[in-house]
Amino acid sequence: MMKVAILGYGNIGRAAEQAIKAAPDMELAGIYHHNDNLDDIEADVVLLCTPTREVEPFAKALLQRGICTVDSFDIHQKIYDLRQSLMPVAKANKAVSVISAGWDPGSDSVVRALLMALVPEGVTYTNFGPGRSMGHTVAAKAIAGVKDALSMTIPMGKGVHRREVYVELEDGADAQVVESLLKADAYFASDDTKMIVVESVAAINSVGHGVNLVRDGVSSNVEGQHLEFTMRINNPALTAQVMVSAARAAVRMQQKGQYGAYTMIELPPIAMLPGEEEKLIRQLV
Amino acid sequence: MMKVAILGYGNIGRAAEQAIKAAPDMELAGIYHHNDNLDDIEADVVLLCTPTREVEPFAKALLQRGICTVDSFDIHQKIYDLRQSLMPVAKANKAVSVISAGWDPGSDSVVRALLMALVPEGVTYTNFGPGRSMGHTVAAKAIAGVKDALSMTIPMGKGVHRREVYVELEDGADAQVVESLLKADAYFASDDTKMIVVESVAAINSVGHGVNLVRDGVSSNVEGQHLEFTMRINNPALTAQVMVSAARAAVRMQQKGQYGAYTMIELPPIAMLPGEEEKLIRQLV
Repeated sequence: MMKVAILGYGNIGRAAEQAIKAAPDMELAGIYHHNDNLDDIEADVVLLCTPTREVEPFAKALLQRGICTVDSFDIHQKIYDLRQSLMPVAKANKAVSVISAGWDPGSDSVVRALLMALVPEGVTYTNFGPGRSMGHTVAAKAIAGVKDALSMTIPMGKGVHRREVYVELEDGADAQVVESLLKADAYFASDDTKMIVVESVAAINSVGHGVNLVRDGVSSNVEGQHLEFTMRINNPALTAQVMVSAARAAVRMQQKGQYGAYTMIELPPIAMLPGEEEKLIRQLV
Repeated sequence: MMKVAILGYGNIGRAAEQAIKAAPDMELAGIYHHNDNLDDIEADVVLLCTPTREVEPFAKALLQRGICTVDSFDIHQKIYDLRQSLMPVAKANKAVSVISAGWDPGSDSVVRALLMALVPEGVTYTNFGPGRSMGHTVAAKAIAGVKDALSMTIPMGKGVHRREVYVELEDGADAQVVESLLKADAYFASDDTKMIVVESVAAINSVGHGVNLVRDGVSSNVEGQHLEFTMRINNPALTAQVMVSAARAAVRMQQKGQYGAYTMIELPPIAMLPGEEEKLIRQLV
């Protein structure tokens, strides 16, 4: 049995607890809060269910102890830098870190890689939502003057999105100042973002989300290949499930001596699944 | 540049030639027919574009020379046995064989593995077509008394299919005898199969095909997750493209010393793509 611990106990941490309990080959090795002493953690792998911006220091501290880590770091532009930062620490301590293991980045990244292998010439459009983005919601909540927030992603087609950010202001906060801080944040800077001040964010909460990935193009010099991947999902439940499946892959790669930091497109999909190799190949291939 | 040769020059071999020419990191190292001397082949990897039942001896002969192979072996029940048969030959000769690298088995297998990692409890339905199955068409053509054939796959929903096999008989062949041989063949034995005798198969030819993979189930103890993968494609063009992308992965795994025989669910998706690791991660993750 793999010993899997959880660091951070918000939406994702709670869902991850359920996913670990449902896994036939895992046992829960403890739930830790972000102010706990990391030296107390005894586990094969730790799920970093903290806000994205706290991932790097926690991952390094655990990798230095030879403990594998999984995160769902979701700032696309900074993923490669995180990988490069964790890579030497993981290798030096014979551990494995799987980074950005949510659904996007994460399983959608795997789909994008597969679509490109099948249709090398073409364009892939990733259309999100409509649904609540957890990373954007956490980022909006962290802005000075914001008491509570919810960031909705609205697909406009062909990979273009609008963001609608519902915000409950702290007493005395200036809505215009908050809005300019929000629009300047890296999470929001490149999208059309609208801030909507509301009395209560709790009243409009939702965890449903979805994606539609489309690629049209050319295989073997033949035009008109059409490939599509669609999901309608509970967002924290899927994110946590991907992290738990990635944790399995992390431990397996560590066992094989393949130390390092990896994104999901660098993992063999079979490594994420429980059970015998032979049975999985007979069942899935 | 990877040197990629083609063995067998039917529908798939011809499409593979186009895919190799379009690949920025490959050069065509020759096109060979199944009765050529295999010792003449000089290549890093050979695409076995022969009928499925000829794959195993050709693969072994090439692997014994340290040359990687890729096939699109498509008898699902026998894939694991092929892997086990090629594994020691590949390892002993420091080569890599990627087997069953078409779209089903192949890229659909990768999607099924990914869907299971995301939704561990649930059922996946693979609905094919309507479209011409190449493997079934080749198998039908090989039956005594058949001059030409075309096997269509008709989806009945929830993973159930009917097969409609259009057959042009040889002079003097008995339709009832041919039909019983056809229905007893491993390709057709487990499906509802209807044989239709026609004057000319050429007149009803088609290479369009498609698939709809659906998984509904539970992630992190939450019901109602819905995932779907859909393609509408030119069949030989996609099969050949997958083989060419898998050939890239075979050579890369050989370069890393990861010798052996692999199905596609055992390959990191990034290994199938041309270009720099850093650029791919920045682009896709």
